[in-house]
Amino acid sequence: MADRKHRGRTGRSGGGRAAKQAERSAPVTKGVPYITRKVPVYEVLDEEGLSLIENNAETILQEIGVEFRGDAEALQMWKTAGADIDGERVRIPKGLCKKLIQDSAPAEFTQHARNPERNVRIGGKNMVLVPAYGSPFVRDLEKGRRYATLEDFQNFVKLAYSTPYLHHSGGTICEPVDLPVNKRHFDMVYTHMRYSDKPFMGSVTAPERAQDTVDMAKVLFGEEFVQNNTVITSLINANSPLVWDATMIGALKVYALNNQACVVSPFCIAGAMSPVTVAATAAQLYAEALAGMAFAQLVRPGAPVIFGTFSSSMSMQSGAPTFGTPEPQLVLYIVAALARRLGVPFRSGGGLNSGKIADAQAAYEAANTLQHAMLAGVNFMLHTAGWLEGGLSMGYEKFIMDIDQAGMIHEFLNGVDLSENGQALDAIREVGPGKHFLGCDHTRANFETAFFRSSVADNNSFEQWEADGGLDTAQRANKIWKKMLNDYEMPPIDPAVDEALLAFIRQRKESFPDANY
Amino acid sequence: MADRKHRGRTGRSGGGRAAKQAERSAPVTKGVPYITRKVPVYEVLDEEGLSLIENNAETILQEIGVEFRGDAEALQMWKTAGADIDGERVRIPKGLCKKLIQDSAPAEFTQHARNPERNVRIGGKNMVLVPAYGSPFVRDLEKGRRYATLEDFQNFVKLAYSTPYLHHSGGTICEPVDLPVNKRHFDMVYTHMRYSDKPFMGSVTAPERAQDTVDMAKVLFGEEFVQNNTVITSLINANSPLVWDATMIGALKVYALNNQACVVSPFCIAGAMSPVTVAATAAQLYAEALAGMAFAQLVRPGAPVIFGTFSSSMSMQSGAPTFGTPEPQLVLYIVAALARRLGVPFRSGGGLNSGKIADAQAAYEAANTLQHAMLAGVNFMLHTAGWLEGGLSMGYEKFIMDIDQAGMIHEFLNGVDLSENGQALDAIREVGPGKHFLGCDHTRANFETAFFRSSVADNNSFEQWEADGGLDTAQRANKIWKKMLNDYEMPPIDPAVDEALLAFIRQRKESFPDANY
Repeated sequence: MADRKHRGRTGRSGGGRAAKQAERSAPVTKGVPYITRKVPVYEVLDEEGLSLIENNAETILQEIGVEFRGDAEALQMWKTAGADIDGERVRIPKGLCKKLIQDSAPAEFTQHARNPERNVRIGGKNMVLVPAYGSPFVRDLEKGRRYATLEDFQNFVKLAYSTPYLHHSGGTICEPVDLPVNKRHFDMVYTHMRYSDKPFMGSVTAPERAQDTVDMAKVLFGEEFVQNNTVITSLINANSPLVWDATMIGALKVYALNNQACVVSPFCIAGAMSPVTVAATAAQLYAEALAGMAFAQLVRPGAPVIFGTFSSSMSMQSGAPTFGTPEPQLVLYIVAALARRLGVPFRSGGGLNSGKIADAQAAYEAANTLQHAMLAGVNFMLHTAGWLEGGLSMGYEKFIMDIDQAGMIHEFLNGVDLSENGQALDAIREVGPGKHFLGCDHTRANFETAFFRSSVADNNSFEQWEADGGLDTAQRANKIWKKMLNDYEMPPIDPAVDEALLAFIRQRKESFPDANY
Repeated sequence: MADRKHRGRTGRSGGGRAAKQAERSAPVTKGVPYITRKVPVYEVLDEEGLSLIENNAETILQEIGVEFRGDAEALQMWKTAGADIDGERVRIPKGLCKKLIQDSAPAEFTQHARNPERNVRIGGKNMVLVPAYGSPFVRDLEKGRRYATLEDFQNFVKLAYSTPYLHHSGGTICEPVDLPVNKRHFDMVYTHMRYSDKPFMGSVTAPERAQDTVDMAKVLFGEEFVQNNTVITSLINANSPLVWDATMIGALKVYALNNQACVVSPFCIAGAMSPVTVAATAAQLYAEALAGMAFAQLVRPGAPVIFGTFSSSMSMQSGAPTFGTPEPQLVLYIVAALARRLGVPFRSGGGLNSGKIADAQAAYEAANTLQHAMLAGVNFMLHTAGWLEGGLSMGYEKFIMDIDQAGMIHEFLNGVDLSENGQALDAIREVGPGKHFLGCDHTRANFETAFFRSSVADNNSFEQWEADGGLDTAQRANKIWKKMLNDYEMPPIDPAVDEALLAFIRQRKESFPDANY
């Protein structure tokens, strides 16, 4: 079991100033593998309000139904389970989804990493922070916006590995568009496995790519281990409103059959893909997720699922998605409460924004989502770091700013120290009115652990800041990611396992008609 | 009574598209005079934790005491009330402050504006948003950072008047350093009175300046009205740790005697002015505020007070204050809960940050404070808009960004509409799986009121943003404040009252030895 204490807090055992300084600058291994919250969650609706939303979701499932498209087997499974099938429309009796999920889906589960110290516990009071996902573009200050490549993908895996504030390597952090679509999943999954030892996500763009992910995991972890443990968490998106398509159903089936976890996640721009109101959006999201999670239980009872939502509002002028606004925050709090009532882990949040660059808009919007996700009790936070442009672009500088925020989330969720040291009455007695606490015993004793230290904020005077070049936040972040990449050291791996992975990939790639790779 | 509905929400009665568009672009009069929250507050500590902090504060007051410096009358008043006086040290028996406050201080009160539609209710479920306060410098994109002038002060009063998202004109928005220190309060108070009709704050830099503020209010509102109503709220800062100085005590006495409100507010950089821990900082802030608020009740039982805190953390490297960090957020939640338990209005929060410019750091930090202040249940939020550089600079562009955030706070606190229209089940029935909601009846019916609309965010595509000049948030905000100043129209005032105010100021200024003004 890894050290569960956040390293910015008390609880370390001495070792002197030099040891403490070494620890402060020590590599990622000193981080916590995940956060366990010590403060309550926030909720916006009471029991009556939440019941209303739940009932509306059940009404949607029974009266309107959900379409499972292009998968006759899925329709047959639903029919056997007791749903009414009309073409591809699946109308599900009230309560059936809830029963299927509550009968078998785990309330929380462990996703194993190849380094056991990095195993994450998903669900309950735990929070796992995960990089952003899915951008075709990347952006940095020097090269601007451009299509992502495998090198960018590798860079972000390295950066996520190098920070103690992300617990997970993520999945499609950005799309390596320099690689052919039908083979790039091998390189992405291999990058997560080789460049990091944190847990990772699998490919979902086709059932056979999901199977490749599982097969690679078997090479990495051993076949028996994968049969008995969850080592992959993957993102399965609904097509809101109320559609699960063949690709996503197919990938979900592969993962669920193999006892691997799925984030069953409506992706919804309210106003376009759901009604323009918070209560309706929450009910629809819940209905979609219920159908997807229940289907996973039909595939394999007990398959780990995460109730996911991605909800943004919409600009009524342009139809563009908008982020960091109040309505998605309200949806987030409602849906988080529904997940707790259902008894499954919850995914939402992230540093969402529609900023084109890592400026004030991007930051306000990202903070507005991150802070509420923190208080809502999100268990698995995809898109924690890097997201720009509504997810179209992965920003190097934005990534650095967001992991700084992730560090603050660690501190906040660690709650209030009410020990005698935390109360510090003796320090107030010692100092007394009108004096300062800078040199008092208590301050010196707690110097190393007092207050979150931002890596990117400039707290100097205006004059000092100007003398230092008057850099903006993005310019400071630029230096940080370059240093992190420069300092990156690849985690060790058994050379035989590495060779086996590469051999697997080689053989699979060669089996494709177009054998270029 | 003004329309209490937020204009971005439902509840308006028809009038057609043109009328609705006119309303959307209508001047400030369409805003709400203040927010009344419809969602719960968030708390980090339970009953046991809060009691511990309260007991520690009482211990501090009784054992260590608070200094009331340079005011023999104040010491005598405390002695009469039952405190132990040792020099300027006032040791207050446990429970005495609480009793004095709970026996007489109002749980909430109305601050009247010269336009009664802008009266604000301070306390309870209400939230009043107020501009930033106290900067010697201002900053805008063209002229950079410079000392503030009366013109800047007037500009910010105009801007605060022009937005529906600030309910109050504030106080020393910035220091007009082009005016002599001993007379500038006349011009500041007059600016609030003449350029705005929202409620305002008074001068606190000397007791006689507080008296001038009260006397000007009597000219504006009439003497009898001021005797019977609160028309001024002023900021009285403690010198943490545990000192109330003669200037602040003197100003407080003037306001309390005149039944005018004081924000009794420790200003604390934790680590320097309180211990480095959250629990100790909260206890000390509470002790300081208890002493100040109880003293106001000694001056005049029933004098309206607001329990204020300004709490930042400190960079342990440089000693500089830091903002938007987790520790002050935790302090904020604790102290807000203590204020509710005590039964007085609470002030904290704001768009605090130590950014030198309105970039990502400033925005992350501001959002991190604004969102938590919103959830904590702050009643009076000084520093809502404009703050930069730890309060040293008032930013024109930052002001625009922050009032956008203030608008979002309105929406969030309006909560979730659970009406049939909010549930929108018929819309989901009408659209069905796989379609979109853009043109459905429900969307069209709610088009005007759906979703918060940011004035400063760019939600367009990257290509459109680039075609529009690729402006960053500050550049967009720059255009907005200029347009707002250009469109500003001074609210009407009775010319006789205006002349009386100017005559009062002229006469008072001429009474000074250095009669230049």
